[in-house]
Amino acid sequence: MKLQIIVMALLVGGAAFAQPPADCKPSALNIPGAPYPCIFPDRTAMFRFSAPSAQKVQVKTAGGVEMSKKEDGLWYATTPPLVEGFHYYMISVDGASVSDPSTRTYFGGGQWSSAIEVPASDAEFYARKAVPHGVVREQDYFSTVTQQWRRAMIYTPPDYDANSKIRYPVLYLMHGWGENEIGWTAQGHVELIMDNLIAANKAKPMIIVMDNLNAAKPGEDASIYNARSVLTQAVPVPPPPPGATPAPRGMPRMSTTFSEMMFADLIPMVEKKYRVAPGRENRAMAGLSMGGFQTFNTGLTHLDDFSYLAGFSGNCGSGGNFDPKTSCSGAFDKPAEFNKKIKLLYLSTGSVEGPRVKQFSEELKKVGVENVYYESPGTAHEWLTWRRSFYDFAPRLFR
Amino acid sequence: MKLQIIVMALLVGGAAFAQPPADCKPSALNIPGAPYPCIFPDRTAMFRFSAPSAQKVQVKTAGGVEMSKKEDGLWYATTPPLVEGFHYYMISVDGASVSDPSTRTYFGGGQWSSAIEVPASDAEFYARKAVPHGVVREQDYFSTVTQQWRRAMIYTPPDYDANSKIRYPVLYLMHGWGENEIGWTAQGHVELIMDNLIAANKAKPMIIVMDNLNAAKPGEDASIYNARSVLTQAVPVPPPPPGATPAPRGMPRMSTTFSEMMFADLIPMVEKKYRVAPGRENRAMAGLSMGGFQTFNTGLTHLDDFSYLAGFSGNCGSGGNFDPKTSCSGAFDKPAEFNKKIKLLYLSTGSVEGPRVKQFSEELKKVGVENVYYESPGTAHEWLTWRRSFYDFAPRLFR
Repeated sequence: MKLQIIVMALLVGGAAFAQPPADCKPSALNIPGAPYPCIFPDRTAMFRFSAPSAQKVQVKTAGGVEMSKKEDGLWYATTPPLVEGFHYYMISVDGASVSDPSTRTYFGGGQWSSAIEVPASDAEFYARKAVPHGVVREQDYFSTVTQQWRRAMIYTPPDYDANSKIRYPVLYLMHGWGENEIGWTAQGHVELIMDNLIAANKAKPMIIVMDNLNAAKPGEDASIYNARSVLTQAVPVPPPPPGATPAPRGMPRMSTTFSEMMFADLIPMVEKKYRVAPGRENRAMAGLSMGGFQTFNTGLTHLDDFSYLAGFSGNCGSGGNFDPKTSCSGAFDKPAEFNKKIKLLYLSTGSVEGPRVKQFSEELKKVGVENVYYESPGTAHEWLTWRRSFYDFAPRLFR
Repeated sequence: MKLQIIVMALLVGGAAFAQPPADCKPSALNIPGAPYPCIFPDRTAMFRFSAPSAQKVQVKTAGGVEMSKKEDGLWYATTPPLVEGFHYYMISVDGASVSDPSTRTYFGGGQWSSAIEVPASDAEFYARKAVPHGVVREQDYFSTVTQQWRRAMIYTPPDYDANSKIRYPVLYLMHGWGENEIGWTAQGHVELIMDNLIAANKAKPMIIVMDNLNAAKPGEDASIYNARSVLTQAVPVPPPPPGATPAPRGMPRMSTTFSEMMFADLIPMVEKKYRVAPGRENRAMAGLSMGGFQTFNTGLTHLDDFSYLAGFSGNCGSGGNFDPKTSCSGAFDKPAEFNKKIKLLYLSTGSVEGPRVKQFSEELKKVGVENVYYESPGTAHEWLTWRRSFYDFAPRLFR
């Protein structure tokens, strides 16, 4: 009878769901039935939170917005207009930083965070439509390098199961810092973007392999991937003085084990278990933010293994101090050779992220390294930048 | 440079991770690198939480355990010995009920909850082992009944892709109240249990379809599936007076739309997209708790469509008041016919859940309805009961 009692309790409890103003639409990321957070047509958002005896509650988005307690005993806040797209956020309750029970949680910032989706003007390209859909598979495999079981998420295009003879090119697609192998599907909707592109005949059907950047050998420190302590504030690092020249940057140290694991374990597993077209001309690698670093680190040191490389809001260089001899460990020192090998070098960023990626693209062009630059209008270091980057990038692959 | 700054901050911040006592092992459900909650050999568990200016913090497990603030400014609590297995929990911070940022979140109780895994003495059967692994696919499909896109999780056995001719029997496996289509994999490890059973030649390779019980037509109230408001406490319902006879129970009203959707949309999609062996002798349905209700509701009204039915901690009846004419809407009124049709009727429960399921099984046997009863020793209405139930149940299928 226990269940029946619970169900009755719910029905009664459910009636207490106070509704938001009619023009405030629940975020698409809310758990089923949760009316808050909701978004007004002017892109301001209203949050609600229950913390009966708290002294101070804040929504940690848009720089932090204080909540205030209303007559119903619940805490409310309305933000300034938010940028369109997907934003992680947390709630601060008397100093505790926690996710909002009203939303689904997403792995970002190294923890399971709340998120809000502000409808974008161009949301159509990642909408779930009446087109053939591929599937995303959770693929377990054992890594000989890390000596652990790992999980890759693998998108196979809509006709993959029906046509058991066709082989497909493959894109290895990396998440960002503090995220994991489900970021590109859960936050990025990459499977929907791809379904839509294939249905419109704008991109070639391909397999997309999304793995976890966390790859440490036994005894190796994995904490750089594991993101911040959930208990301590990240120690603030002072910003560089205005006008200071950033130090030239080599390969980030963190990626060696991942590269090793990728060639020893991941690629062989994918090529054994999936119908992958052979050869470097059918293999691409791309990533966002730290995944962009990883892509350049792995790709530039394995030019015989890839024909397409992309970094969305992350790559090996930086505008303003490019030197072909030293930048990116000298990988661009022989432009003609590089151009011959790599069919597409792709760089992107959000316009709010600053001019560095654009400058880097231009400096590469100046020394003769062909590349494509894309800029997402009005967005920052966030998922709408990366959804748009992927949408612009994928049609250029395997042509 | 932004990323580099973040990464530096992390490296410094990471060092502040204070370590728990050496014999307190981090729960397997913690996010990577999080030392708490941890579990001592005697199954007491230690929790830690950061809430600098909170007045009252409690771990909502084992009936509620007060946390206290130590010299490092963090809140700590040690629980009494916990039952082995998987337990959802939340943290109460000055009255706010929130998940613990230290753990992965699981959809249970209608929200993304924290959880702790207390190692079980028999954990071997759901361990990830060096055996061939199947894959779990996220399969989108459009429902003509609900007029919405839905997602099913579909386990295909290890040899599914390699043997493109073989057809497999299929089990439709339902989650419980307040959970969703990923419960059986994320919380239940059903894919690992199945991989292990197949490797040991103890169960037939099969396809397992896990869908979401939430199925409402346009305009229909879906709130019964959506679980409790995240903002209000469920209204307490007084327990029945001691010795009172529970009212006879018919089919729960909530399941009609799901059944309709299952036959109109889910089963046809599965049989079109996957290599499913035809006929009722190759089709089973099972579920836990509310998913057990759903299984009996759907299965008993469609005896021509299934040969195997199971309810783990949930079915259509209850011990102590069984009447073949009225219980379960009279589905067991003709035992001989029923036994001929259904090759296996399976009932299970956790020993701590009480005697009702066992009584029901015995009463069914008394009137001639064959069934198998399984009891998980020492466990309550929780996932270890259901992992064990599945492990006991799956080998009996499709024989």
